[in-house]
Formats: sequence, structure tokens, C-alpha cells
Amino acid sequence: MVFYPKYDSRKAGLPPGSLVYLGKKRSEKASIHVIDYDSNHLSEREIVHCADCRGYMNENTVSWINLDGIHDIEKVREFGEVFNIHPLALEDVLSTGQRPKIEDYGDYILFTLKMLYMDDDNSDLVAEHFALILGKGFVLSFQEVEGDVFETIRERLRTGAGRIRNMGADYLAYCLIDAMVDSYFVVLESLGEHVEDVQDEALEKPASSTVAEIHRLRQELIFVRKSAWPLRELLSTMEKSESPLLSRKLKPFLRDVYEHAIQVIDTVESLRDLLSGAMEIHMSSMSNRMNEIMKVLTLISTIFLPLTFITGLYGMNFEHMPELKWHYGYAWAWGCLLLSSIGMAVYFRGRKWV
Amino acid sequence: MVFYPKYDSRKAGLPPGSLVYLGKKRSEKASIHVIDYDSNHLSEREIVHCADCRGYMNENTVSWINLDGIHDIEKVREFGEVFNIHPLALEDVLSTGQRPKIEDYGDYILFTLKMLYMDDDNSDLVAEHFALILGKGFVLSFQEVEGDVFETIRERLRTGAGRIRNMGADYLAYCLIDAMVDSYFVVLESLGEHVEDVQDEALEKPASSTVAEIHRLRQELIFVRKSAWPLRELLSTMEKSESPLLSRKLKPFLRDVYEHAIQVIDTVESLRDLLSGAMEIHMSSMSNRMNEIMKVLTLISTIFLPLTFITGLYGMNFEHMPELKWHYGYAWAWGCLLLSSIGMAVYFRGRKWV
Amino acid sequence: MVFYPKYDSRKAGLPPGSLVYLGKKRSEKASIHVIDYDSNHLSEREIVHCADCRGYMNENTVSWINLDGIHDIEKVREFGEVFNIHPLALEDVLSTGQRPKIEDYGDYILFTLKMLYMDDDNSDLVAEHFALILGKGFVLSFQEVEGDVFETIRERLRTGAGRIRNMGADYLAYCLIDAMVDSYFVVLESLGEHVEDVQDEALEKPASSTVAEIHRLRQELIFVRKSAWPLRELLSTMEKSESPLLSRKLKPFLRDVYEHAIQVIDTVESLRDLLSGAMEIHMSSMSNRMNEIMKVLTLISTIFLPLTFITGLYGMNFEHMPELKWHYGYAWAWGCLLLSSIGMAVYFRGRKWV
Amino acid sequence: MVFYPKYDSRKAGLPPGSLVYLGKKRSEKASIHVIDYDSNHLSEREIVHCADCRGYMNENTVSWINLDGIHDIEKVREFGEVFNIHPLALEDVLSTGQRPKIEDYGDYILFTLKMLYMDDDNSDLVAEHFALILGKGFVLSFQEVEGDVFETIRERLRTGAGRIRNMGADYLAYCLIDAMVDSYFVVLESLGEHVEDVQDEALEKPASSTVAEIHRLRQELIFVRKSAWPLRELLSTMEKSESPLLSRKLKPFLRDVYEHAIQVIDTVESLRDLLSGAMEIHMSSMSNRMNEIMKVLTLISTIFLPLTFITGLYGMNFEHMPELKWHYGYAWAWGCLLLSSIGMAVYFRGRKWV
Amino acid sequence: MVFYPKYDSRKAGLPPGSLVYLGKKRSEKASIHVIDYDSNHLSEREIVHCADCRGYMNENTVSWINLDGIHDIEKVREFGEVFNIHPLALEDVLSTGQRPKIEDYGDYILFTLKMLYMDDDNSDLVAEHFALILGKGFVLSFQEVEGDVFETIRERLRTGAGRIRNMGADYLAYCLIDAMVDSYFVVLESLGEHVEDVQDEALEKPASSTVAEIHRLRQELIFVRKSAWPLRELLSTMEKSESPLLSRKLKPFLRDVYEHAIQVIDTVESLRDLLSGAMEIHMSSMSNRMNEIMKVLTLISTIFLPLTFITGLYGMNFEHMPELKWHYGYAWAWGCLLLSSIGMAVYFRGRKWV
Repeated sequence: MVFYPKYDSRKAGLPPGSLVYLGKKRSEKASIHVIDYDSNHLSEREIVHCADCRGYMNENTVSWINLDGIHDIEKVREFGEVFNIHPLALEDVLSTGQRPKIEDYGDYILFTLKMLYMDDDNSDLVAEHFALILGKGFVLSFQEVEGDVFETIRERLRTGAGRIRNMGADYLAYCLIDAMVDSYFVVLESLGEHVEDVQDEALEKPASSTVAEIHRLRQELIFVRKSAWPLRELLSTMEKSESPLLSRKLKPFLRDVYEHAIQVIDTVESLRDLLSGAMEIHMSSMSNRMNEIMKVLTLISTIFLPLTFITGLYGMNFEHMPELKWHYGYAWAWGCLLLSSIGMAVYFRGRKWV
Repeated sequence: MVFYPKYDSRKAGLPPGSLVYLGKKRSEKASIHVIDYDSNHLSEREIVHCADCRGYMNENTVSWINLDGIHDIEKVREFGEVFNIHPLALEDVLSTGQRPKIEDYGDYILFTLKMLYMDDDNSDLVAEHFALILGKGFVLSFQEVEGDVFETIRERLRTGAGRIRNMGADYLAYCLIDAMVDSYFVVLESLGEHVEDVQDEALEKPASSTVAEIHRLRQELIFVRKSAWPLRELLSTMEKSESPLLSRKLKPFLRDVYEHAIQVIDTVESLRDLLSGAMEIHMSSMSNRMNEIMKVLTLISTIFLPLTFITGLYGMNFEHMPELKWHYGYAWAWGCLLLSSIGMAVYFRGRKWV
Repeated sequence: MVFYPKYDSRKAGLPPGSLVYLGKKRSEKASIHVIDYDSNHLSEREIVHCADCRGYMNENTVSWINLDGIHDIEKVREFGEVFNIHPLALEDVLSTGQRPKIEDYGDYILFTLKMLYMDDDNSDLVAEHFALILGKGFVLSFQEVEGDVFETIRERLRTGAGRIRNMGADYLAYCLIDAMVDSYFVVLESLGEHVEDVQDEALEKPASSTVAEIHRLRQELIFVRKSAWPLRELLSTMEKSESPLLSRKLKPFLRDVYEHAIQVIDTVESLRDLLSGAMEIHMSSMSNRMNEIMKVLTLISTIFLPLTFITGLYGMNFEHMPELKWHYGYAWAWGCLLLSSIGMAVYFRGRKWV
Repeated sequence: MVFYPKYDSRKAGLPPGSLVYLGKKRSEKASIHVIDYDSNHLSEREIVHCADCRGYMNENTVSWINLDGIHDIEKVREFGEVFNIHPLALEDVLSTGQRPKIEDYGDYILFTLKMLYMDDDNSDLVAEHFALILGKGFVLSFQEVEGDVFETIRERLRTGAGRIRNMGADYLAYCLIDAMVDSYFVVLESLGEHVEDVQDEALEKPASSTVAEIHRLRQELIFVRKSAWPLRELLSTMEKSESPLLSRKLKPFLRDVYEHAIQVIDTVESLRDLLSGAMEIHMSSMSNRMNEIMKVLTLISTIFLPLTFITGLYGMNFEHMPELKWHYGYAWAWGCLLLSSIGMAVYFRGRKWV
Repeated sequence: MVFYPKYDSRKAGLPPGSLVYLGKKRSEKASIHVIDYDSNHLSEREIVHCADCRGYMNENTVSWINLDGIHDIEKVREFGEVFNIHPLALEDVLSTGQRPKIEDYGDYILFTLKMLYMDDDNSDLVAEHFALILGKGFVLSFQEVEGDVFETIRERLRTGAGRIRNMGADYLAYCLIDAMVDSYFVVLESLGEHVEDVQDEALEKPASSTVAEIHRLRQELIFVRKSAWPLRELLSTMEKSESPLLSRKLKPFLRDVYEHAIQVIDTVESLRDLLSGAMEIHMSSMSNRMNEIMKVLTLISTIFLPLTFITGLYGMNFEHMPELKWHYGYAWAWGCLLLSSIGMAVYFRGRKWV
């Protein structure tokens, strides 16, 4: 995953309001899924043409129209026509590099968000651009690919559990954002495990790959924070908003999800502290290991260099070397060798090196 | 202890206001303890059914109802019914990962706090979620487990010492929060000792476990700060609050505890500075130790390598080597050896290495 | 490229409002290019004398007058006379070290900006001072050299694509600033590639040139940020401006380009994080490499020093050394040698060094 | 000296307003010293019973009543009764861990401050709690021990120098605070010398004790800053205060001492920068020293290992080794040895190692 | 140069408003120089007695009275009497440690500033205290020593170039401050060169003196920033001032010099970034050099230790060593030696160490 927007340069020079999809190339067909409900009934269907959505533009029921596949620019443009969406809003729907933000267009409110999850083998963070348009009696949601974190909401809608079926479109939008924030905790849980692993690795078998891993995790955490931080502002703006689209009843719930967003940021900070710790532990372990290696080298050299000297001494070929002729000369030499070794051992003990 | 909230992912997808206990699994039975008092009399009892608390919901006397064991969700829910508490407030009572905060629900004020103490062998920091509901004439307190820092308050209530028996429920709530902040100092005192130990260790016998210990302490300090920081805001909000539940007479006391909270944060900062110091001292000690080791290695090598060369020289087998035949050849060799050693010793003295 | 203003000292002591060009010395002749348009027609020509511009000073058509080569101070002064520009504004037009800013002179608004691009071999960042004066019905733009990032705008003007031909001079000014911000993304894309290269280098073949490269990139990023940060303020000021020169219709577009500026700053921050990471990876790789080298040295010394001792031992010349006379003495020596080697190998395996 | 409050845990659980002295245990007797003056006369005496102070509670003359020894809680309590001081104010008078603050009680203003000086051998920073109560016509000052920085003020009072005798009690309080701030400069001068010493030490003979010293100084500086920072706020509050106890004439003087407090903070910051520098210089010196040692080791090894090899070569016992029988074999060997040494020397010169 | 105020402790205990000169001791005589001008004429003279200045206290002409040598306290006091300056203002005029500030005394405005220049051999930063009093029709300037950065202003006054002769005393004060800010660029240019030198040194021949130099430069930069930062505030206060002494016509010029001050701060920040870079490059170069040294040591050891072993092997004195009697034994030994060397060489190539 790349943690900074690379793509925008391709858009350079285009007139503002141009609809361009700059995310990953995709070949899947875009699909549209509609859930229409009020407190008494609920209907659910797949539709092909955006024009079929016109029927849902009334305020009697809440309609949740979800598009998977914003790379199908044509479909997005059609939505824009059907629901009368401003070109700049549509541009933001498509702009995968857009920071999370809220924008009130009067008749509808645009939210752009980041959906985060871990990839299939739970090792990499994946971010998906997600846009939400809340209008009178309808919610449009735009996703890059199929598969999302909203299945429990669909279930609650279908079974009518909780208060969701009795509330308006604004509550549905809140639920979607809440589910998204909740999914951040799942991501953080997984990252938290990686952080702990890397901390253990730093302490026990430091390698320079550890540092690379620490930095990968740090970038992922920064990315989560970058998604959560503007989300916090977004929710704060939403809470203070005077828009008739957001009823007063929603305020305590917004307060609740706002606090969750703060908790996400808090957790990210804690994990980053842990990572800094891991980095320092790594550096210290490396340095410690070096000390260990050097100690062994020094021990060996310090014991064997004097020994080698002694053997060299009695390997000299002088004609007149009295020791060589002694009967116990060899034993004497061994005595010197042992004495030297013992002396060194005592010295090291004294320095507490062994 | 884990210093970041791991649990919330389990809650992901639940509708807001769901009562779930996400703290440590516990098997103890929840127990309810009531102290009911005014300036003249005081009664104290254990009760089993929450419904029995109804009798205490009057403003004539102050009732302190304490629940140990919030894992017993059913009891918490019953309390909610008896005292007419909002589901979102109850959710916060149970939510062990909740940041300290204050929330005014009109008829009552909810406080969520963190109780901190050191575990039995005084080595690890333990945090307990603590919630407080202040209503007209009553204080509900919710704890995770039995055992708290409020014993001196109970004693003051029983003996009638100080002004506590003559003041209202708000003063009781203040006393509980004050006791909690005081207990932070006990924790900091203990952490302070650990910090000093680790600093000594860094200077005298640095090991990579020192770094791990430094980071454990740093995380504990960060945790204390994270508990104290929002507490500070909470107290500031409380002081400025216009709620009729908080009498004007309380203000100077709130100011006092507010200053204590600031002192906690100050002390945490001082201890963190000490820890950074310990880290730098550690790094420097490691590096110093390395220098020491290398110096010994270099000394030994520098003395013995020339000696070995000389012995090697006179160990050569050339037929024509005049020295070998000299009568004092061996003495000459020893002369060379001594000269070389002395030369090196002088050199090292000159460099102040010995 | 130098990333801090060196030149201003040459200007020290001059009275304020003096026109001095302090950028790079240039010999090209300054050239003036005019595009005059309304929704129906467009004319384009090169002119030689500034006085010829007088004809474009009406509000019926929009005139874009571009000067390449502000080192030709005389031309700039003439422009000042023709369009009645304040000397301090002209000073800013020439002052290549000027931070990006906006200044409202009533009849016209002055913008100073930085145009950024990569040099021809895509390795160095180049910054060019760019000034813009927006008046009633005209836009004056001043560049250091020929060649800019506005070619697509000229094309849109010529073909009449988009809304540009139907809007006023303020929209043209917006388009120029927008194109400039877009060009920042091109620069960041290129810097991003360099950052990734340097990160790989840090991991795989760390050298001290890597550090120098990291710092060069860091300075370039800081420079981009320094250009983008006041630009952000400039756009914010522009959005809030009450000047009649900026129509209300422009606001959403200004909001859009403002967000792009924030994205530039965000991206710079991400890249700086990556660079810090690269620095730490580099340090760790260096340290790792050192450990590797030391390990080899220690291994070799630890294996061969004992072997050399043994050979030295049996190289001694004592008359009475029983082993020397053994029939299998030589084999015995080899046995000792092998045993010693194997012992060391086992020891290293135990320490997981091999 | 301990730079973080350890003691407060002993106070945990006590009801608010309890008078407890938590500073160092002391055995000296508390003493009370009174100076009573107006522009015409001045009287000075030691008194034993606080009740004797009652005579000074009039507004005709200014009375400065100084208590040395706040560990005598009883005396402080008596003062409280005589001058009608609030229990919470008295608690702050005794609370040696209290941050500097100002509190307006209407009839009097309480100041808590930190008096700083270096201990007798000028090596450690000593902090003393100091409380000041400014009432109508009197100033009460409370110190931990005898000996203070106010001797020059007493002298000015006695001699009537300057305007002090003609101004009110508020000017006296100002003078005391001003003297205290001035004494901070004496402390900083001494710390500054230590900082310069440690910087020299870091450059010339780095040891791990240097790092410990750096951290001790850093903590002392942080402590000075912690005392000066709230003092700054205190003075700012004082300047803006509407209290009738503080006359308008005092404002320019308060402004003056406020600026001194800022200068103290500035100086602390400069000294901390110097300390960080010392730390980096230390680290670099350590690393440099290591390089030096390694260079010597490498030089010696690189010269003698080849020499030893050559001597070993001609120490082999092969029957057929032509060189051994050469007449100039020994000279040839010496030639090889010299050649090898010279070769290495040339190589090192080339690498600029020697 | 000392970058933190050392002297103030000498002033401790003095009553406020005492005139003390605390800068460097000087023996030069103080000199007074007056320039008196309006748009038509200009007169210039040296005067000896301050009383002679009385003639210039009218509003018809602008008088610039400059005192070189504030160590002559008596002269400063006389000025105070002649121009009726408040004692606290005079104290600031003398207080060489005073931060740059502006203070409006109604009839006159006091500015204290820092004049910065490089010493004669362009290696050290020198700071001089500079005070300015702007009154109706006169400007008093106070300098520590003769020699300043105002020569071009005197020239402009004499020749009547620019608008200076036609404007009031406030414009003269502005010109002086502007010249001072301009002189900061000269200082920064010189420091910039030193920074670049030190960066090269860090990369090419790192020594611990490099670190000391880096820190010296860092302190000088911090000092420049400390002078420029309050200057910025001063100019901002001046711009917003309602004082009748500052005419409206001055505002755009103040804006201009304000921007220069910001540019100074910006440049300081850039240079500090470069210095941090130099520090990191230095550390990396040191570490790199260490790696290089260790590599050589390891290469040599790894090649010669096995060779020495082989020669030792055939230097053993066993009676039965078949190789020794081989006809080609010596050649065989050489074969072993070469094989071992080649093996090692291949190994190193494989690890890319050579």
C-alpha cells in the first residue's frame, strides 16, 4: 500500500469539476443495491440503471442506494443527474485521494470517508475511498469495490432490531459512519498485535528487517490517524450543524461516535509510543549484541595471545637457551601457560566480564 | 497490563446503547453496599436487589450506593431502571475503555474515571474503570472489583469527622474524586522509585532488559497521564458547571482538587524526563562499556603481536643466523621483548589509555 | 539549488521601494505575450513595448498579459507606469526571495507565488518566482524565464473548453494558481520516487552518501512545504476577501484549490515521515553491517587463535617433550586441532551466531 | 535534591483543609521577626507569640511579619486565627509541594513561591517553599528555614533608600517577589558555569558520569523553569488584578519584574540548548575515541600479522626449503619483513590513517 | 560570545530604576553626534554636553541624536533629564540583556533592539544593545560602541536621496530599524557559509571538533532568532499602534520590514535544518568510517590467521611428520597457503566486501 497520494499529477491541467477516477484500475462491473424501508416494511433489490432510482426520491420511506465500483464513471455521472448532485461533489465522490470531509450542499450533505480493513492474510492495511450523500429520505453510498463493513447494519435493517427502522435517513448515515469507526478498532487490534510482535522481535532477534517492519507499521498507524483525525472534525461539524437534514435526536449518538473517533486517535498514539519503544529497544539490542560479540573476541584474544607468545618463546632456535635443556622444561612451559590463562581468567572475573 | 484498548472490536456492529461488559472476565458475585446519612445519623447495609435502593431516592439524606462488579450487567440494568438512567449513560458505566469524562444528564451527572493502584507486589500498575452517578441526594458508584481507595472516606462518614456529614451528595462525590486523585500520588510515588532504580541500573549495569523496563515504565506513566489529563478537564468543567446538583460551596474544593490533578500531570512529566535521562545514560553506558572492552583488546593485541613477531623471528630455521649462535643471544632476545613491551607501555601512557 | 535566501544582503541599505532584481543573472531578452478574450472571440499576440498594453485596459474583454524575464527591470517599471502599480508592489514582483502572499491594493490584487518543477534530468527541484496582478479585466503575470505550467490553460482558452471563456479575469487568475498547485503534485510524485529509492538504498547498501541524499530530499520537501503553507493562507484570505475583483461565483473553486494545497502539505508530511524512516533504517543497517563484520572477525579469530596456539605448542624446542617422539604424535596434534575447531563450532551454534 | 513531589501520598485520605507539614523534618525553633515602618519611622523586633502581632493589624504603618520555620504548624495555625486566614490558604502556606500561584481571598492575597539558591559548596540547587500573604497594611511571609535573599530589602528599609519607605504594603510584597526573581539569576549564573564545565568535559574526557551530570543539570534547569513559569502567570494575573490591595502605581514595576521572569525562562532555555549540545558532543567524542582505538588496533594488527606470517614461513621444518640454506637467507627474510612493513605504511598513508 | 545573560545577578538586590551598565567594560569616551534636518537644509555636528541638545527639542526639524557609549551612565542620565525620560525607560536603555521590545510612554516611544554583525575575521557573531527613543521631532539612539550599520542612512540624509528628508522622525526611526533588519541578512549570509562549510566537513572529515562547531553555529542561529522573534512582535505592535508619534503613512513601510523580519526567522529555521542535517551526516560518516576500519581489520585478520596457522603447523617438531620429508613438501605448503588466501578472497568477493 502506498501511504501518500501519487495520482493527482495525472489530473493536473484538467478543468475543475472534471470527473476522473484515479484509484486502482478495476475490471469488475459496478453494481447498485437498494434497500428501501420504513418502520413497517422493507424491500431490497439490485438495479441496473440509475434512472430506476428515481422512484426512491421521496421522503415517505428511507432509501439506501449503494454503488459498488466508482471506477464506472458513467454510472456516477448518471447518479449525479438523477439526484441533481453538483459536479464538484461528484468529483469528490470519485477522488480516492480526498481527505475525509463533510460538505453541506443545502439539499444534501456530502461525506467522504476512508474505509479501512486488513487484507486477507491480515498483514497489510487496505484503505478504500467511501463517499456518502445524505438527502431527504435517501442515502447514497459509493464504494470502490464490493464487500464492506455494513453487513450487520443490513441485518439490523432486515430484522428490524434496535431503533434503526423507526428513524430517518440521517440515523442510517450515522450508523454507516459508526460502523466505519468501529471497523477502525478491528484494524487497530490487528496492528496492535503486529506491534507487539515487532517489539518482541526487537528485544530477542534484532535485524534491520525489524526496523523496516517498524516503519511499515508506523506508516500504517499514521495512515489510520490521518483518516481518523479529519473524521473527528467531520463529526464535530456534523454535531454542530444546523442542517434540517440532521435531526436533533441524532446529537447524543453523534457525541458517542465522536468519542469513539477520539479513542481511535488515542489508541493510535499509544501504539506509536510502543513502536518508538520498539525502535529504541531494537537499537539497544543491536548495541548489546555488538558488546557481546566484542567481549567474546576480546576474551579469546586476551587468553590466547599470551599463550602463543610463550610457545613462540620456547620455539626460538638459540643455541644457548637453558630452559630447553631442563628436564622439566616442558612442564615448566605448561606451568607458564596455565598461569597465564588463570591470571587472565581472574582478571576477567574481577571485571565481571564472565 | 495492556495500555491501549483492545476490546472494542468485539463491540463493533452492535447498535448504540447496547450494554456489554468488555473488561476482564470475572466470576465474583457483584455486591451492593449502601451508606445512608445526614448530619445526625448514619446507616450502612449490604443489599441484594437493586429494587431495595428505591427507598434511598429521597433528598432528605445522602445515600451512597456502591456496586462492586460491573460485569454483572443485569444488576447495572436494574439500577438503570430504578434510578431512571439513560441507556447511553449505562453503556458508559460498563465501558471499561471509556476515557474519563463528565456528562450532565439534567437529573443526574455521570462521571467516568480511572482508579489506579499498584498490584500486590508493587511492580505493575493496575487500572480499574470507575463510574459515578451524582443525583439529588444520592451517589451511585460502580467498580469493577471489590477493594478501593475510599476506606478513609467511609471512616470519616462513620466517625463524622470533618464537614462531610454536614454537606450534600455533591460533597461526597467530590470526596470520592479527591480520594482517587490522591491515590494517583501513591502510584506515582511507587513509579518514582522504579524510575530511580532503573536510572541506577542504566548507569551501573546496562542491559537490554533495562531498555525494556524503561519502556514499560514510560507506558505506565503515559497511562497515568492519560487518566489525569481528561480528569483535569472534567474538574474544570465541573467547576464551571451551572448544574443545581453542584452547590456553590463546592467551588473552592474543586479548585483544590483541580490543582492536585495538575500536580499529578507535572509529576508524570518530571518522571518522564527522568526516564529519558535514564535512556540516554543507558546508551552512553553501553557505548562506554564497548570502549572499555575495545581498549583492553587493543592493549593486549598491541603488546603481544610485536612480542610474537620477535619470537617468530628467532624461531626461523635459516642456517646462517648470527644471533642464534651468540652466547647471549637468548638474553638479547629477552632484551628485545622487554624493550618492545616497555615501548608500548610508554606509548599508552602518553595517550592516557592506562 | 539553495534553499534559503542568500541575496538580500546585497539589497541592504537601499531605500524601500527600490527596484532591484536579485535572482539568477540572465541574458535572454524579456518577452511579452498577450491573450485577449471574451466568450465570443480571442486574439493572441507578442508585443514589444509595454505602452502597447494600454489598449487592453478595459473591462469588456479579459486580457492576460504575461512577461517572461523579470530581470529586465526597465520593462517591469514601464508596466508599473502603464497600469499604475505601486512601487512597493513592483518591488515584490521583482523580489525573488519573497514568500507567497496576497496583497489587496484596491484597484488590483498582487499575488506572489513560487512555481516549482523538476529540472531536465528529473533530479533537482527548481523554484521560480511568479507574480500575478489581478485588475479589472486584466491579469498581469510575471515570470523569471520562459516555459511554464500554463500551456493547458492556453489550450482551454483557445479551444473555449470548459467555462473559462465565459468567466472573468478572477477566474483566469484562479486557473493560473490552480495549475500551479497541480504542478506541485507532479513535483511531489517525482520526489516520492526519489524517497522510495533512497529508502531501498538505506536498507540494502547504506553509505554516507545516502544520508546526504536524505538531507537533500528533506530540504527539497521543506522547500515545497514552505511554498505551499503560505499558499494555503493566501487562498484562505482570497476566499474570505471582500474585494469586488473576486466574484462570489469563485468561492467553491477557491475552496477546491485550498483543499489541494492542504493535500500538498499532507503529502509533504507523509514523505518526510518516510525520510525519517529511511534515516533510521540507514542507521540500523550501518549498525547491522558492523555487527556482521565483527561477527566474522570474531569467528575467524576464535577458531584460529587456539589452533595457532596448539601448533606453537608443538613447535617448541624442549629436549624432553614426550609427544614429539610418539609415533602418532602428529596425528595426536591433528586430533587436538580438529577437536578445538569442532568445539568452537559447537559453541557458536549454541549462541546462534552461525 | 528530588525534583518531583514525593510526599503527597502521605496526605492521601486526609480531609481537605488539614494542616500538615510535608517538607523536610526540621528541629530548629520557629522564629517571628517584625519590621513596622512608615515614611517617618521604623521599628524592628523579634516576637514569640503570634498574638503579639495583633498590634500590627492597622493600616497606618506597613508591617512585615516574617515566620522562619513553617514546620511549627501550631504557629501557622495561630497566625491563621490572628489574621483570620482561610484554612485552605493556610494549607497552601504549609504545602511545600505547591506550585507558585496567586489567590485573591478578598481581604488578603495569598502568594506561594519557590525560593531558589545553590547549596553551600555551590554544587546543588536548593528550593525552599515561600508563602506571602498581602493584607491591608501588612505582609506576612512564611519560610521553611532561616536565611533568605531579602537582606538588601531590610537594609533599604532601615536606611530608607529608594522609594520603599514611602510606598504601601503592596510595594513591599513586590520588592520581595522581585528579590526572589533576581535570586534566580544568581542560581542561573552558577548553573551556567556548571553547564560550561560539563560541555568542556564532554569534548575532552567523555565518561558516562558526564551524562549523569548532564541529566542532573537538566533536571535542575527544568526545576528552575517550573518555578519561573507559573511565576510569570502569577505576575501577569497580579498586573491585571482589580484588587484594592494592589495600587495602580505598582503596575510599571510589575511589568518590569514580569519581564525579568521571562528572561529567566529564556536563559533556562538557552542553557538547556547548551546541555543538549553537550550531550551530542559527548556522544560524538565517545564515538570518536572508539574510532581512534580501533584505528590503533587495526594498524598494529595489519602490520604485525603479515610479519608473523613471514617468520612462521621460515620457521617451518621442511627438509627441502632452499631459502634456509642460502647464505643470505636471513637477510632475504629481513628484506621481506621490511618490504611488508613499508608496503603497509604506504597503504595507510594513502588512506590518510596516519 | 556568551549566548545567555550572565550579568544580571550583579544587579540583584538593587532598587528598581537604578541605572547600572552591565555590558562589557569599556574605556572609550562616549560621543554624541547630531544630525538636524528638514526638506530644505541639514546640519551635522558633534556635541559634548547633553544640555546642548535642548535646542533640538522642537518639532520644526527632525533631529537625530546618537550616543555612542552607554557605559557613560552620567551622559545617559543627563539625556534623561534634558528630554524628560522616565527612570525605568533609562534603565532599559542601559540594560544590555534586555529583550527587544517597544514601550509607549506617551510623549515618546522606547525601542530596545539588538544590532548584530560578524566580528572582524568574520567568524564570530557579535551582538550590541541598541536603544531608540522616538519623540516629537527627534530620535535618540543609544549604542554600546562606535560603528554601526547606519552609514547608508546618513548618506541618504546628506544627499537627500529618496523620501527620507521629506518625512518625519517616525520615518527616520523606521529607517534605522529597517537597516538593522537588513544587517541581519548580512549576518545570516555569513552564517550560511559557515553552515555549508561544516556540512562539507561532516561529510568528508568528521571530527569531534565538527560537532562543537555545529553547536556553536546553532547557538548563534538561536541568538539571531531570539533577536528577530521579538522584533517581529515589536513591528506588529508598532503597525497597530495608535500613537500620534507614528503617522499613518508609515504603515506600508512597517508591513514591509515586518515581512523582512519573518524572512529572517524563516532563513534561521532553514539554516537550523541544515545544521541538524550536518549533525546526522556527521554521525553517519563517523559510523561509516568505523565500518571501513573494521572491514580492513577483519580482512587482514581473516587472511593472515589461517596462513599463520599453516606455517605453525609445519613448524611443529614431531619426529614423524611425513609432509616434512616430502621432496615437494615446501611447494605443498605454499599450495596450501595460496589456496587459503584465494578461498578467503573469493569469500569476501561473495560478500561484496572488496
